[in-house]
Amino acid sequence: MITSDQPPFSPMRRVQALLDVEVALAEALADIGVIPSTSVAPIRAAARVENYDLTALAAEAELAGNPMIPLVRHLTRLVAAEDARAAGHVHWGATSQDVMDTALVLQLRMAGGGIADALGRAADAAATLADRHAATPIAGRTWLQQATPTTFGAKAVTWMLGLDRARARLVAALDAASDLQFGGATGTLASLGNAGPAATTALAARLGLRVADAPWHTERGRVADVACALGLACGTLGKIGRDLALLAQTEVGEVAEPSAPGRGGSSSMPHKRNPVASARALAAAVRAPGLVATMLAAMPQEHERAIGGWQAEWDTLPVLVTLAADASTALADALAHLEVNATRMRANLDAAGGGARAEGLVAALAPHLGRAEAAHIVEELCRRAVAGGHPLAHVAADDPRVRTHLDAAAITSALDPVALTATAHAIVRRALQHRHRDGKGPDHG
Amino acid sequence: MITSDQPPFSPMRRVQALLDVEVALAEALADIGVIPSTSVAPIRAAARVENYDLTALAAEAELAGNPMIPLVRHLTRLVAAEDARAAGHVHWGATSQDVMDTALVLQLRMAGGGIADALGRAADAAATLADRHAATPIAGRTWLQQATPTTFGAKAVTWMLGLDRARARLVAALDAASDLQFGGATGTLASLGNAGPAATTALAARLGLRVADAPWHTERGRVADVACALGLACGTLGKIGRDLALLAQTEVGEVAEPSAPGRGGSSSMPHKRNPVASARALAAAVRAPGLVATMLAAMPQEHERAIGGWQAEWDTLPVLVTLAADASTALADALAHLEVNATRMRANLDAAGGGARAEGLVAALAPHLGRAEAAHIVEELCRRAVAGGHPLAHVAADDPRVRTHLDAAAITSALDPVALTATAHAIVRRALQHRHRDGKGPDHG
Amino acid sequence: MITSDQPPFSPMRRVQALLDVEVALAEALADIGVIPSTSVAPIRAAARVENYDLTALAAEAELAGNPMIPLVRHLTRLVAAEDARAAGHVHWGATSQDVMDTALVLQLRMAGGGIADALGRAADAAATLADRHAATPIAGRTWLQQATPTTFGAKAVTWMLGLDRARARLVAALDAASDLQFGGATGTLASLGNAGPAATTALAARLGLRVADAPWHTERGRVADVACALGLACGTLGKIGRDLALLAQTEVGEVAEPSAPGRGGSSSMPHKRNPVASARALAAAVRAPGLVATMLAAMPQEHERAIGGWQAEWDTLPVLVTLAADASTALADALAHLEVNATRMRANLDAAGGGARAEGLVAALAPHLGRAEAAHIVEELCRRAVAGGHPLAHVAADDPRVRTHLDAAAITSALDPVALTATAHAIVRRALQHRHRDGKGPDHG
Amino acid sequence: MITSDQPPFSPMRRVQALLDVEVALAEALADIGVIPSTSVAPIRAAARVENYDLTALAAEAELAGNPMIPLVRHLTRLVAAEDARAAGHVHWGATSQDVMDTALVLQLRMAGGGIADALGRAADAAATLADRHAATPIAGRTWLQQATPTTFGAKAVTWMLGLDRARARLVAALDAASDLQFGGATGTLASLGNAGPAATTALAARLGLRVADAPWHTERGRVADVACALGLACGTLGKIGRDLALLAQTEVGEVAEPSAPGRGGSSSMPHKRNPVASARALAAAVRAPGLVATMLAAMPQEHERAIGGWQAEWDTLPVLVTLAADASTALADALAHLEVNATRMRANLDAAGGGARAEGLVAALAPHLGRAEAAHIVEELCRRAVAGGHPLAHVAADDPRVRTHLDAAAITSALDPVALTATAHAIVRRALQHRHRDGKGPDHG
Repeated sequence: MITSDQPPFSPMRRVQALLDVEVALAEALADIGVIPSTSVAPIRAAARVENYDLTALAAEAELAGNPMIPLVRHLTRLVAAEDARAAGHVHWGATSQDVMDTALVLQLRMAGGGIADALGRAADAAATLADRHAATPIAGRTWLQQATPTTFGAKAVTWMLGLDRARARLVAALDAASDLQFGGATGTLASLGNAGPAATTALAARLGLRVADAPWHTERGRVADVACALGLACGTLGKIGRDLALLAQTEVGEVAEPSAPGRGGSSSMPHKRNPVASARALAAAVRAPGLVATMLAAMPQEHERAIGGWQAEWDTLPVLVTLAADASTALADALAHLEVNATRMRANLDAAGGGARAEGLVAALAPHLGRAEAAHIVEELCRRAVAGGHPLAHVAADDPRVRTHLDAAAITSALDPVALTATAHAIVRRALQHRHRDGKGPDHG
Repeated sequence: MITSDQPPFSPMRRVQALLDVEVALAEALADIGVIPSTSVAPIRAAARVENYDLTALAAEAELAGNPMIPLVRHLTRLVAAEDARAAGHVHWGATSQDVMDTALVLQLRMAGGGIADALGRAADAAATLADRHAATPIAGRTWLQQATPTTFGAKAVTWMLGLDRARARLVAALDAASDLQFGGATGTLASLGNAGPAATTALAARLGLRVADAPWHTERGRVADVACALGLACGTLGKIGRDLALLAQTEVGEVAEPSAPGRGGSSSMPHKRNPVASARALAAAVRAPGLVATMLAAMPQEHERAIGGWQAEWDTLPVLVTLAADASTALADALAHLEVNATRMRANLDAAGGGARAEGLVAALAPHLGRAEAAHIVEELCRRAVAGGHPLAHVAADDPRVRTHLDAAAITSALDPVALTATAHAIVRRALQHRHRDGKGPDHG
Repeated sequence: MITSDQPPFSPMRRVQALLDVEVALAEALADIGVIPSTSVAPIRAAARVENYDLTALAAEAELAGNPMIPLVRHLTRLVAAEDARAAGHVHWGATSQDVMDTALVLQLRMAGGGIADALGRAADAAATLADRHAATPIAGRTWLQQATPTTFGAKAVTWMLGLDRARARLVAALDAASDLQFGGATGTLASLGNAGPAATTALAARLGLRVADAPWHTERGRVADVACALGLACGTLGKIGRDLALLAQTEVGEVAEPSAPGRGGSSSMPHKRNPVASARALAAAVRAPGLVATMLAAMPQEHERAIGGWQAEWDTLPVLVTLAADASTALADALAHLEVNATRMRANLDAAGGGARAEGLVAALAPHLGRAEAAHIVEELCRRAVAGGHPLAHVAADDPRVRTHLDAAAITSALDPVALTATAHAIVRRALQHRHRDGKGPDHG
Repeated sequence: MITSDQPPFSPMRRVQALLDVEVALAEALADIGVIPSTSVAPIRAAARVENYDLTALAAEAELAGNPMIPLVRHLTRLVAAEDARAAGHVHWGATSQDVMDTALVLQLRMAGGGIADALGRAADAAATLADRHAATPIAGRTWLQQATPTTFGAKAVTWMLGLDRARARLVAALDAASDLQFGGATGTLASLGNAGPAATTALAARLGLRVADAPWHTERGRVADVACALGLACGTLGKIGRDLALLAQTEVGEVAEPSAPGRGGSSSMPHKRNPVASARALAAAVRAPGLVATMLAAMPQEHERAIGGWQAEWDTLPVLVTLAADASTALADALAHLEVNATRMRANLDAAGGGARAEGLVAALAPHLGRAEAAHIVEELCRRAVAGGHPLAHVAADDPRVRTHLDAAAITSALDPVALTATAHAIVRRALQHRHRDGKGPDHG
């Protein structure tokens, strides 16, 4: 029995989706009078996954080359036991790939919607962090070195924008992929005589899918694009996971993932709290690229049905869905309950001796000395500050080349992290306003 | 000197694009009064790629970690030789990545537009083939085996739809990526004081780019999405290349790529005409997935500037652009001048002894015997036809189980390729109408 | 219960392998007196996969970050129910990754051995085909066009050599990876005091593994190399699958995969026999590259335990193993029972009008006219032969530039496929002799 | 002119390598009397890259489908200008791929040897670090959290072992790939009549390559295996680059890459020293997996010459070589001159409040309380220590459950990083001894 905790592409759900399409096909053909309406009920009754031995099915599928051939055989057998005539109407006019691709679309729509929701929740959580910490100074870091200061809100707003973008891409790709697959053996619907177009319309209506301009058995742009959108989502989540993991390092300590019993523990190191949500996002980001590549590599499919390429998709796209679902859920939760340590952020910024704010001093000197000369002098001051263990402000105040142009207050101001991040603060505010304006906030979806 | 035949990402074009951004930056800062307008001309004069030693630059870039550091040094030196004060205004407020990413966006927009055009031309050519051969019978082939008949127009319309889809995806991705990158060292524009937002607006206006909601130094969804769109284009082209190469096989001979002097020859086999356009499309389809994967794998970029991930993009996205440009141009040309051999298509269909049309017979018998029984009988007849070397029509006509339900005319009709492809013909017509309606035809673009 | 038909990385087998390592650890520690020998039996009794709820374990693993934490908890609980003191000795001195990596090595060794055997059987079958058809002419094909003739044995010998090479690579990689993983939390074995080295030696002995020079928690070269070897195997099998599928095309018909009930059928096309083994090999070849890329991308693992990279391996390497096992088994069977149609090979060669053998004529003329001139003339003759529908031999015999140097017999001989493939025949014989000499034949392994 | 600073796969070097093979072919054929020895000198004289217009050649190659066709044409023309008869002996008996693959092998051997050397130098530098810091305590870090202590030597020895392994793999793959490619159009050497085997032997001897058991035009295991070995090298270097970059973080400061003028600077942040060697290694590790995947995806090459797959290799393997060369050279230098800050290592270890050494306390208590109970108590103590800001040793000493079993000295000893890393120290010594024994040290190579 399918239970709500089963993943979207569990064996049971996959087979049930195939059977659902067979039922809709019978209904649609009955709708337009191709098969008698009395054949629908027996097919519907037999089309429940509980009636099938999934292990046997898998073994038969391997031999036959696809799962539909044995599934149709078993379905036909079960229907025949109740109604011999209805058994003759099973799978009428369809080819295996019609059913498999359509079932895939149905499953993608459902599972993909869940991922889009999780991406939305994660973006909302990032927006909340951005709002709360719009002006909280933190070291900006480039090449993993402290650079000029920024604000934690500016970091969070970048996460938010990436998540919103990833969500929009996924929603668009899922929508573009919501096309019925129906064409019969080679896309001609020949076995339906002249009823092909009507059957197509009826089947699409039954399933709530669009009618494609042509069967797309070997034109895989739709599903490959969904794979790309999932890959982009995993990459976006991976960037956030990496930032969180770096910020959570013992030596940095600026954020911590939420703790919970049984969560992120260690069998031998009781003091540790591992950033498991970040790890899940990073693992997804490591795995997704290869899986997207597989979907793209599978695109050059031969003629009217592929030999190899289509088959390569079967267990690839579902894994991508699972990874994106896992990573988005994990990070939505971690961001929503992230522990933020603003004190530590400031302390780390100060500990680096002010060098991280050197750009402020360069900017203040540049109008007087030209950028290159200013940079040259400040570089020298930084070196002296680090060597002597003195704050940069003091070293600068003692240097006549600086003092000619800046007094102590100007130096302090040039090195003040809050002043240096005023534009960052403004950027955060504007981005949040735009998001609110575009109706993407938590109350809007 | 840059000449029109240089590829979009040649070393010269890349450096010139970087210099173009430096010029626009100076102009924009002069526009808003941050630097004097007298500094613009000397910067513009120095910012011509001919003034630089690209080989030396490449070596210095390796040591510095990126090409901008030495380029700005040389640019500053050249400006200083003319106007010492202007030299102090070079690269004002920007970080290396601001210039490199913005130059990339400018180059993508230009090169990507060319690829979109080539995809459009290829789609137009496929539409013309679909129109001309909407009802030309050809063997439908699944698993590289002849299956039921379809029409060559139905094949071509699938190519057309894939190309239109790939083009639309690319155009959308390029548009979404047309965002200025401008944030200074860590995205805060700190060195511009409170002039950051105005400078951003002015620079975007100068370059015809949008202002992003926030700097996107380590939020790489935009460029990764362009990579995905290019990957989808290559996959779509690869599918067509594979079909063409298979149809052009000596033993199939249903199409031939256009011939030209020096084209597709062989040093040792003078009789051969190699399908070189198909090979270029297939090679692009083999290479693109790994490159897209690289762009996705590079997404989890650390904090405000990556260590490794961004650098991995530099020579990856340009190669993808080059591959897509090459494959789309090659196939646009090959499709536009494709030699189509309808006689051979029909002969191949007939040579397979009618088995390829067996589905027609199953469909005709199914209402009388049920689908399973009909299929069972026809399978037996096929085997007998192949074993005895007789046409399926004759074997069927001799079988009492068939004759009870179908007379000779009905059997012939059930196996007639034109009748069997009537729906395929209708699908082609509808798809072409939709394309015309949507203004995608050759006269519309 | 684990049954023999379960795949090597089924959930049950995976958990049992983890438990097997826990048992061996207890045994090894008892061997050297770190824990009392009375603790071993209770641990062994509890360490049977049937005692665990795998679904619950999976859910707990997700929260904890790895499966060992909950597994050790349950194992400890089960042991405690029998022997409280022994419960204190469970998982003694080990970290989760020690057990997981060592279990992986054990599973790779077993499953990898099976793949190596299947590759060996496939190579033997290819050798048999090469021997039998060493001199059977077939069109050599380049760019999917008939080129000069070769022999089917020469094709088969190429398959054989690729398979032997892939097998040797896999065996070497598996051997190089057969190193115990044992280091405790950060590779220092600190919790074992000074018993670490002795425990390592004892545990390796218990499991039949080598002692590594150092723990390899984040030095993943070993497992990534196994992935590479599996990827090479899949690529090698994919080449053969592609050749077979192309040779089996309806229009070529030179080989057919063995038929069997339920094998390669079609729900709607009863006449078809799909090359399902080739499709399985091709699907594996499409999927393997992305999975190998994932294993390589996962290599830069942080410090003493990765965050993301190691986790990315967990469900990647097992899928690669499964693909390689499936593809090698399928092709070993298909090659062993391949239906070869030498008549059709010769017919296809003749049907191309002799053009495929033009090189023979070029070679015969080259000593008299120079290669370029000879090629030029033969190219013209080929064009004339195709245009007029005449055999190349006749057209050549009528051309004075040819007749000056070659009489009719010389022309016929220059175009004779058996003569043209004499060296190919010799190459096949030599390769088979070398294989026999190196003891790789079917009777040697 | 080729200069020593040109990368191994520069356009000039690539064309010269092709010409070198043409010269060797002429020499070999003259050696066995197939062509007159007087033809060799004119071919040799013409076969210098300076004689060719590489830009024109590239354009012609695109049209022809490969670079050899126009190159042979130009070579023939140049030879003809000197010696018309010799012109007829250019490229005798060879197909384009013979020359291109053989040239590739020659270039791989040379460039690959350079990479192997750099890997060896990097391993030597790591060995030196391991030796010097075998007992220098440093925080072991798992999931980017401080875990139990290890030694910097133990980290370095892991790098060393990975590098030695990567080097050995590369050397083996290069050796296995050093096979001449020579087979003519379809691998039959038909155009050489019965001189094929002798020509093969002579050509291999001229080039110092092995004779393969059969031509390997579409059996790409050799070159794909070189790609794998390069990918493994990049992954191994990426692991080291990641560790270095993490250790060099401003907040960690335990190592720094060597500084040099122009190295790792920043245009706007004069105080920074970017770890550029690590970035180069990481960028290589991000890019290599996709390129290896491409080489594997290209393996299923059709029949006797691929359409797409082989072409996909042309610009892929050279990029892999370049990446591995760049990354190995960069890290060999960075490791050789790494600045190591042992004081900071110890300070970071102490700053974490002793929690990183908690395992030592668990181990000391486990014999008395059982592992689970010991872990439970220590976890509680850690929490108390962090909450109160006290060293773990003090908190433990105050806890009666601990004091029952351990006195203050025992607690101190249980938490002493040097004691806790005694086994790590021993592991380092043993690994260095084994390396010395196996002759891999800096004096041995």
